[in-house]
Amino acid sequence: MNKTILLHEGKAKKVWQTDEPDLIIQEFKDDATAFNNKKKGSIADKGVTNNAISCHLFTMLGEKGIPTHFVSRLNDRDMLCKSLDIIKVEVVTRNVAAGSLVRRYGFAEGTVLAEPIIELYLKNDDLDDPLMNESHAVALGIASYEEVSVLKEMAAKINALLKPYFAERKLRLVDFKLEFGRHKGQILLGDEISPDTCRFWDSESGEKLDKDRFRLDLGGVEDAYSEVKKRVLGI
Amino acid sequence: MNKTILLHEGKAKKVWQTDEPDLIIQEFKDDATAFNNKKKGSIADKGVTNNAISCHLFTMLGEKGIPTHFVSRLNDRDMLCKSLDIIKVEVVTRNVAAGSLVRRYGFAEGTVLAEPIIELYLKNDDLDDPLMNESHAVALGIASYEEVSVLKEMAAKINALLKPYFAERKLRLVDFKLEFGRHKGQILLGDEISPDTCRFWDSESGEKLDKDRFRLDLGGVEDAYSEVKKRVLGI
Repeated sequence: MNKTILLHEGKAKKVWQTDEPDLIIQEFKDDATAFNNKKKGSIADKGVTNNAISCHLFTMLGEKGIPTHFVSRLNDRDMLCKSLDIIKVEVVTRNVAAGSLVRRYGFAEGTVLAEPIIELYLKNDDLDDPLMNESHAVALGIASYEEVSVLKEMAAKINALLKPYFAERKLRLVDFKLEFGRHKGQILLGDEISPDTCRFWDSESGEKLDKDRFRLDLGGVEDAYSEVKKRVLGI
Repeated sequence: MNKTILLHEGKAKKVWQTDEPDLIIQEFKDDATAFNNKKKGSIADKGVTNNAISCHLFTMLGEKGIPTHFVSRLNDRDMLCKSLDIIKVEVVTRNVAAGSLVRRYGFAEGTVLAEPIIELYLKNDDLDDPLMNESHAVALGIASYEEVSVLKEMAAKINALLKPYFAERKLRLVDFKLEFGRHKGQILLGDEISPDTCRFWDSESGEKLDKDRFRLDLGGVEDAYSEVKKRVLGI
């Protein structure tokens, strides 16, 4: 499968058109950004690590019945995917209070939520990805009420699969962001699942093993990412 | 009915305990604040005007089957109400884009929404009343999913009653904020409905006839409030 035209260059990935009209290639980069591009840097081998973790998790989710865009891992940095009509919503699912939940609502960091919080954000860098609800998504013409309800149900199901999966690997799934798109009349899970898009805390020590190490200048970023890869892939 | 103990002094109203344990008095003040207290002032006779408008609208809504806390208008500034266990959610219903909808999501001011947008805000001044969704409300212990769904349904019904009611009076109901509370196992509409809590635009000229005149220093604040009173009460 050959990369033909660069369709889009995002913060962490390039998206390439291929010879096949329904397939694209996600190329994982080492670039890291935070706070909507206000902080920029690079994490050695992040692209390789996140591609490996994402391919592994998409395969697992697919086997459990979640429709995803994942087709195959092509090489260290490239993932072959079904092309999506991206739904401009970021769906964040939270099991434990951290990040904006602490800042915005005054939760103490680490508060265990009795039921997951599911949040919708408008995917729009110019507007700083604002929080929204289903009626905003509909008014903005981004998705129908039915589609938003599918996104929320899929996020809840994926959480119910990922949480115990990571727990067995001594990782606490604090929260994570998902993106979705339409493909031939079906909504598929898109993007990636990695320490860039999840908060993982070590189940015993509580140590942060995700992009918060970069965001908050905690050091040991590369080690955290490769530790997650080791635990997820079991190698 | 006598005021006994001052239970709460808010930005625009005092709430008094009465001789009757289930009844309170809302006393409407002339104080005006905006931007979460960053801007303060006073609008002559606002308390009298808002009490008159609110009593009139609560009576109308009650007759149309909406359960409200309104009991009776006692005098110029005092409204007798059923005491509520306040639900710390502000429910904002929007028919036309204005205010934070423009700032946050980039809607052009005046965009007519095909379906109303209903927003939930956490009622918490220290946190600047952040936008939230039902899962936040539940996690914060503020309301159950069932209660939030009642609030949203009530807001939609109230909008369906108020919008044509104001339209007949040449007022466009752009958006409005409602508050609710529990009383003997039932959820009642509380607080007030007035130019402090609604955006009204003149149906023909588009002139703003609400608190935006104060917020945005447009002048003619008192005239706008009394114009709304005249149109709503028909006197």
